[in-house]
Amino acid sequence: MKGLVISADWKPKAGYQVTPEEERTGLVRLGDQVLHGPRLSISERPDPVLSGEHDVIVRDVACGICGSDIHLSQPDADGYLAMPAPFRVPIAIGHEYAGEVVEVGSAVTRVKPGDLVAVEAQVNCGNCRACLRGLAANCEFLLDRGFTLDGGTAELSVAHERNCWPLTDVAERHGERVAYDVGALVEPASVVYNCMINRAGGFRPGDTVAVFGCGPIGLAAVGLAGALGAGRVLAIDLAAAKLEIAAALGATATFDPASGDAAQWLLEQTGGVGADMIVDASGAGHVVMPAAVAAIAVGGKIASVGANFKPVEVDTLALMFRSASIFYSLGHLGGGFPAVIALHAAGKLDLTKMITGRYGLDDGLAAMERARRGEDAKLLIHPNGIPA
Amino acid sequence: MKGLVISADWKPKAGYQVTPEEERTGLVRLGDQVLHGPRLSISERPDPVLSGEHDVIVRDVACGICGSDIHLSQPDADGYLAMPAPFRVPIAIGHEYAGEVVEVGSAVTRVKPGDLVAVEAQVNCGNCRACLRGLAANCEFLLDRGFTLDGGTAELSVAHERNCWPLTDVAERHGERVAYDVGALVEPASVVYNCMINRAGGFRPGDTVAVFGCGPIGLAAVGLAGALGAGRVLAIDLAAAKLEIAAALGATATFDPASGDAAQWLLEQTGGVGADMIVDASGAGHVVMPAAVAAIAVGGKIASVGANFKPVEVDTLALMFRSASIFYSLGHLGGGFPAVIALHAAGKLDLTKMITGRYGLDDGLAAMERARRGEDAKLLIHPNGIPA
Amino acid sequence: MKGLVISADWKPKAGYQVTPEEERTGLVRLGDQVLHGPRLSISERPDPVLSGEHDVIVRDVACGICGSDIHLSQPDADGYLAMPAPFRVPIAIGHEYAGEVVEVGSAVTRVKPGDLVAVEAQVNCGNCRACLRGLAANCEFLLDRGFTLDGGTAELSVAHERNCWPLTDVAERHGERVAYDVGALVEPASVVYNCMINRAGGFRPGDTVAVFGCGPIGLAAVGLAGALGAGRVLAIDLAAAKLEIAAALGATATFDPASGDAAQWLLEQTGGVGADMIVDASGAGHVVMPAAVAAIAVGGKIASVGANFKPVEVDTLALMFRSASIFYSLGHLGGGFPAVIALHAAGKLDLTKMITGRYGLDDGLAAMERARRGEDAKLLIHPNGIPA
Amino acid sequence: MKGLVISADWKPKAGYQVTPEEERTGLVRLGDQVLHGPRLSISERPDPVLSGEHDVIVRDVACGICGSDIHLSQPDADGYLAMPAPFRVPIAIGHEYAGEVVEVGSAVTRVKPGDLVAVEAQVNCGNCRACLRGLAANCEFLLDRGFTLDGGTAELSVAHERNCWPLTDVAERHGERVAYDVGALVEPASVVYNCMINRAGGFRPGDTVAVFGCGPIGLAAVGLAGALGAGRVLAIDLAAAKLEIAAALGATATFDPASGDAAQWLLEQTGGVGADMIVDASGAGHVVMPAAVAAIAVGGKIASVGANFKPVEVDTLALMFRSASIFYSLGHLGGGFPAVIALHAAGKLDLTKMITGRYGLDDGLAAMERARRGEDAKLLIHPNGIPA
Repeated sequence: MKGLVISADWKPKAGYQVTPEEERTGLVRLGDQVLHGPRLSISERPDPVLSGEHDVIVRDVACGICGSDIHLSQPDADGYLAMPAPFRVPIAIGHEYAGEVVEVGSAVTRVKPGDLVAVEAQVNCGNCRACLRGLAANCEFLLDRGFTLDGGTAELSVAHERNCWPLTDVAERHGERVAYDVGALVEPASVVYNCMINRAGGFRPGDTVAVFGCGPIGLAAVGLAGALGAGRVLAIDLAAAKLEIAAALGATATFDPASGDAAQWLLEQTGGVGADMIVDASGAGHVVMPAAVAAIAVGGKIASVGANFKPVEVDTLALMFRSASIFYSLGHLGGGFPAVIALHAAGKLDLTKMITGRYGLDDGLAAMERARRGEDAKLLIHPNGIPA
Repeated sequence: MKGLVISADWKPKAGYQVTPEEERTGLVRLGDQVLHGPRLSISERPDPVLSGEHDVIVRDVACGICGSDIHLSQPDADGYLAMPAPFRVPIAIGHEYAGEVVEVGSAVTRVKPGDLVAVEAQVNCGNCRACLRGLAANCEFLLDRGFTLDGGTAELSVAHERNCWPLTDVAERHGERVAYDVGALVEPASVVYNCMINRAGGFRPGDTVAVFGCGPIGLAAVGLAGALGAGRVLAIDLAAAKLEIAAALGATATFDPASGDAAQWLLEQTGGVGADMIVDASGAGHVVMPAAVAAIAVGGKIASVGANFKPVEVDTLALMFRSASIFYSLGHLGGGFPAVIALHAAGKLDLTKMITGRYGLDDGLAAMERARRGEDAKLLIHPNGIPA
Repeated sequence: MKGLVISADWKPKAGYQVTPEEERTGLVRLGDQVLHGPRLSISERPDPVLSGEHDVIVRDVACGICGSDIHLSQPDADGYLAMPAPFRVPIAIGHEYAGEVVEVGSAVTRVKPGDLVAVEAQVNCGNCRACLRGLAANCEFLLDRGFTLDGGTAELSVAHERNCWPLTDVAERHGERVAYDVGALVEPASVVYNCMINRAGGFRPGDTVAVFGCGPIGLAAVGLAGALGAGRVLAIDLAAAKLEIAAALGATATFDPASGDAAQWLLEQTGGVGADMIVDASGAGHVVMPAAVAAIAVGGKIASVGANFKPVEVDTLALMFRSASIFYSLGHLGGGFPAVIALHAAGKLDLTKMITGRYGLDDGLAAMERARRGEDAKLLIHPNGIPA
Repeated sequence: MKGLVISADWKPKAGYQVTPEEERTGLVRLGDQVLHGPRLSISERPDPVLSGEHDVIVRDVACGICGSDIHLSQPDADGYLAMPAPFRVPIAIGHEYAGEVVEVGSAVTRVKPGDLVAVEAQVNCGNCRACLRGLAANCEFLLDRGFTLDGGTAELSVAHERNCWPLTDVAERHGERVAYDVGALVEPASVVYNCMINRAGGFRPGDTVAVFGCGPIGLAAVGLAGALGAGRVLAIDLAAAKLEIAAALGATATFDPASGDAAQWLLEQTGGVGADMIVDASGAGHVVMPAAVAAIAVGGKIASVGANFKPVEVDTLALMFRSASIFYSLGHLGGGFPAVIALHAAGKLDLTKMITGRYGLDDGLAAMERARRGEDAKLLIHPNGIPA
């Protein structure tokens, strides 16, 4: 099968001790220490096979491009993979995807051939301390389609049935094409669901939720906040186009921080109370945190989702006077998939509004090039052709 | 001022020990032991006065008729008030109401004259064990407009500012008339909010919520479930007219239990999983509980709201095999008012669809007569005239 | 290897449809429909083998006898197994046990040979809806050592590493013999932990916890309540010997309901407030529930653990006036094992006080005979000999 | 009556706009802007009177000296009160205290003359958004004994009955003298209770709790962690004497960070897992946070209690990879008083071990002088004489 594949050379840095296990499997714990010269291509990968009785083979139909995919395709300053995390090459990237079940193992009960499914890319062990405490995405032995297993930009993929979530109800209500689109968007939505709902415990009905950063994660936060009973959803981003999508997804009001002080605006919008939940999906915590602290309501929650690569200074005195909290989270496992799918099936959420472009697999490199420009909300790759 | 007033005669039953406090205040702990021959009339009551610096005087504009109001107006088998609860006569009934602020005490900061407000009828002490544990509606010293204080069917009422919740945002979005209607409906919605949200802790996004009994409480549950992210809302009632309103309020599917087995239907609707939350708003727990037990999902919650006057038998073995829970609740205090108002202001909930009739105060007895027939969802009394 | 084994004859009742899967595996969904003439013996069973790379073989050292074990060994009125649940014969019973790791599969990381471990008897699939919602004990495909897999009364057993919880810290503090005893008691403690902590969400620090029924489950509740910060622990049972153990485990006061009204006593002990949490571990919910309802505090929680075979009538009106809740639960999976072990390692809990007798495997039938008399708290079988 | 009184001169800074309300009441919103030359003395203050029917007059018996009391008595660089918070002079300081009820208002039901009570110093309005959301200590109109009302170093004080928590059960078990001591220590314990329990939601039974900073707040955290079921309690401080008290209060192990890397030590103590809850009671968040981040377990909670006057830099990437959270809190209102008292009455907690000195009121200035040296855990002032 073909896929959008990352290749690189095995060239461990001096000082990195490659383990026999890494030698044997090719799966390195820290990609940035071993894998040199990462490069993208449309290449062949072996077809997946059913290796366990709970395995499912999926024909991949729609796959979102994520910021981390772009990251992967660009070497760091030393020419190495820009990712201090487990990786294996060559690998078909893509961890936000949906497809059609084409074959199932003998013990599979959750899905059957022909079913449309969204696929969780993360594979947790189920046995480690994190898994047994309900933190599957923090699994000590996590595997990850698109990183350590072939992912959703390939024509086919294989997944445990546990990671396959039927889109049947979405297809019934909105048609198959929309169902696949939704299936590709469930992953980013589940990433922010993990932070807002699983870690932060959600917000009270009627509360004000503010979202900094209207990339796909932030836009999903906007949509979820509205679907789950926020009274006000306030969206903040520098890009007018993204604020427009935020409004379409239900933001009550939007703000460009180039036009003024975001914290001040949040306080005005809330009659001085501040926001009960602030989602920081900006990736720029060092910029957002001061505004969040200044505009968080008494008892409020700051849900910090995604990676901040610069250190973040926190005015803890201000947070103390507001009895506020900050929540961090990782990954998409944890109940987000069925919830987000159900909200689409119920017509309460329509994340497809954030799709701004579609590409066939053969145009995968062009898709990545466009994604790199950062002007889009969400681009999709359709490994088996753009649906009619 | 005029109001729809309950009168009765002070005639303590043999065996009931009237306390000096009861003698002094006229407020009896158990109305059914002391107050004989309850009767309704449109009568004069003294105008309310500002007696505390946090008091607010409200011109009452819209007031819902509740099942308990009907109860109050009909003597029990012995000819006494049919209410084993604190009461005082004469009293203007009405505990679901909204109005316009006309005067405020010197320390009031939450509202000002001219504001539209929904008024919480319950007055908690703030000092007892229940209050200090966040269970205001279980206050040991609870007073209750419409029962022990003059309520919302009178032309005017007085309330602590804490109990007055501005409808400003609703009026801005939907106009004043709708805002008053909403204000009158917030109370029944808050009663079921207390059970679903405060006591039972809500449901997970995308979950299935089933509602037994589509009177105003059940209808509010239907609306709230949808507004707060239920994936499916399944409504059950014997009256086709009420099921229609349920559908208008967002029920995914409706069912008349006269047409078949409700538990079976719920299991079919949920692919055999059952409902994650079942709200019993029927007042007929002895009938509903067996169905609820049979149709509750693993880990599910049964929210039992309102009074069941017959004993309820529970198949605890079945609940054990499902690790289910049952939650009981009381009253409307506890954060429901601001939440329900905010959901209306945000356009996520429109409970006014359950209003099936309106009466001026002079037609109050006719309104009660019609309410007694039980065919309506919600009737309103407008003590200062039906709005144009 | 030898074990305390239940045998029975395969004799499906008319009307029970044996599935091909049941034929093939011998594992029936409802033991009481198929298995006739259950009988106990000390018999040979095949030695367990490592069949998965995460498997662990354990030399079983201490195994508690549970009420359900007694149940299993006595035919019902029709001469069938008295258990409407999945079963397989012949099977070595015992689902409360600890032992020493003797062999591990190639992928095992949690334990190593020589480790002392408590073994969770329940084996969940990790993939079904219940598992993915954190309700492992409600797994749709649950297997159960002592019921459908050979259990802890045999000399050896095999378990997934996930089900093996090291007793190392307990052994370090209290010695190996105590560690094995603790290991055998963790299961009943985790059963009630599931109800009190996982389902009911625990109690507030300093709250009053009352426990009805001081068998091993109830005694564990007494110990846990004290270890987790209850202000008062009130224990109720008809047997003076069990109340003595309850007192040794930290009950603040104890009560024999033959001597008076338990609800009345609870109200007296709490200055009229009632108990914040009531654990019903009596198996006689039809008797306990009325008392629990009468003595539950405002906002209180009733944790109903274990099976009630008679229907239970609930005064829902009383529970409504107290805004109370009832929680049901199943099984021991769910985080209880590490918690209970840690509390013993920390010296905060000593459930070994409930051990009232020990038997070698050869005396297993005598042990069961004595257990059947119901006078003991907890009897242990030591399949590899009573420790010196 | 006499008390340990702070005086200062009314000398508004240029740029601070004194409001008419401040002029009228003498209560300034920001003490550091108006009050110049703060100084301590043993002085006369008017006896308190019952001004409301729920008021209680207390003869103050034991009052702890808090770090903020020391702060108050030392001018800042400009010679002003070193407190950017509401204040009024002259005022008898002391907000950690217990005494005997000597007189009660007509409506008081919770206490009676002769009762021993711990007094909450904070007085919340009960009506503002914070109060109605259960965040009493964040009340918008908070008054504070020892800051804006005369406090516990005076011979008498007056409090609403709601703020008076009986020590009766403690006195019965441990005697009156101990009960008063406990009563004076409940406040700092409730401050950290607010953060650990109310805000952070506690920890799981058997979890590891680490405490940075073993002043009275940190020591209370150590004691509470043990009393509420922590498996390990790890205490960290630079002062050997304080670590000794931590050990006496139940710390499993203690560490002086001058002797090595605290994070490393925490990881060693927990087998590499890290601490499930880390309480930062150091007041030096800029030093502690990096260690806390490095040693927090997956899913762990950092409870940051007390004020950090330097900015705190947070490695949010590390917290993301651990799905950790940070909780901030304020004040002592919120259920800590009854909980901490009940734990003492139950014999589960003995915070009196942290008392390192006692002073009569006449020696109040000497007490403050000693407190200023920072070597003590907790010093008490006995305004009516040191108990025999």
